[in-house]
Amino acid sequence: MVRWEPDAAGRLRRAAVELFAERGVEATTVAAIAERAGVTERTFFRYFTDKREVLFSDQGQFASLFATGVRDAPPAASPLDAVAAGLRAGQSFFPAERRDGARVRAAVIAANPGLQERELLKMAGVADAMAAALRDRGVADPAATIAARVGIVVLGTAFVDWLAAGEARELPELIDEGLRALRALTLA
Amino acid sequence: MVRWEPDAAGRLRRAAVELFAERGVEATTVAAIAERAGVTERTFFRYFTDKREVLFSDQGQFASLFATGVRDAPPAASPLDAVAAGLRAGQSFFPAERRDGARVRAAVIAANPGLQERELLKMAGVADAMAAALRDRGVADPAATIAARVGIVVLGTAFVDWLAAGEARELPELIDEGLRALRALTLA
Repeated sequence: MVRWEPDAAGRLRRAAVELFAERGVEATTVAAIAERAGVTERTFFRYFTDKREVLFSDQGQFASLFATGVRDAPPAASPLDAVAAGLRAGQSFFPAERRDGARVRAAVIAANPGLQERELLKMAGVADAMAAALRDRGVADPAATIAARVGIVVLGTAFVDWLAAGEARELPELIDEGLRALRALTLA
Repeated sequence: MVRWEPDAAGRLRRAAVELFAERGVEATTVAAIAERAGVTERTFFRYFTDKREVLFSDQGQFASLFATGVRDAPPAASPLDAVAAGLRAGQSFFPAERRDGARVRAAVIAANPGLQERELLKMAGVADAMAAALRDRGVADPAATIAARVGIVVLGTAFVDWLAAGEARELPELIDEGLRALRALTLA
């Protein structure tokens, strides 16, 4: 009998990423993920529809974190300042202690074209959510779409640097560096 | 006997996109593409390694068009002005008469996840080529990477609008609109 485990979803996520990295996604079964997490398969299916979904199941929560940051920016903030507020809200998803786990997850995704595409769609979803929040602030298109996507460019560039070996800085500092570079682009 | 055809590669490209749109990519054979283009299969394989490559075979030429535009921008141009010059050079790939063909190609790609991914990689390749050209101009990272990717955001947003039903403006005007919106992002 398996006793009730606190944070079963989190344990399942960590177990899945570990097994995907060790054996590959194809060779990893739901049974193996559940076993390593110390729960039953039934518990697995209470949280996730399939093994790949474990890598993306926090997608809605993730996107709304960024969108809420945009929405809650001061009314006088420029579109880019509102996007910067969105990135500041979203980066709370990636505290220092998640860096090693994020590296393993990124390596799993990089090894699997289908997962790469799903990851790109996830980030496109974050851009869409931020663009919608900008429209709610009265920003017209194409500015709203461009501002949101430019924010994802800054986030993606900072994220790759954050995961790179030898990079000591944390994500907030790398995002700030990217935003400064973005604001300086029009200067010769 | 098949006589020599001028622009066999162009005819094969158009034939392939038509057939992909009519029958789907899976159901289209190289033999059918060659037949519609009025050439032999042997001629097909002189230009392309497989049927999917027909959609992406101009990738290197496409990326270098943008990179050359960045490289040839005036020395005093800001990173964003150099990227704008790259987009101006690259948009020559999409004259008004290519709009309908581009619509059909986009629909084929949208219907096929594998092709979507290849298209994303193609655009990432253009960003990489522009970023390298910016580095050659003395722009450091992350500014070079961010400037190039931001250019691709403007291009991609303009391109989707260009292909949308009812959009009368041509691509250069839509790109200019995107660049103006980008430059205005920091204004409240």
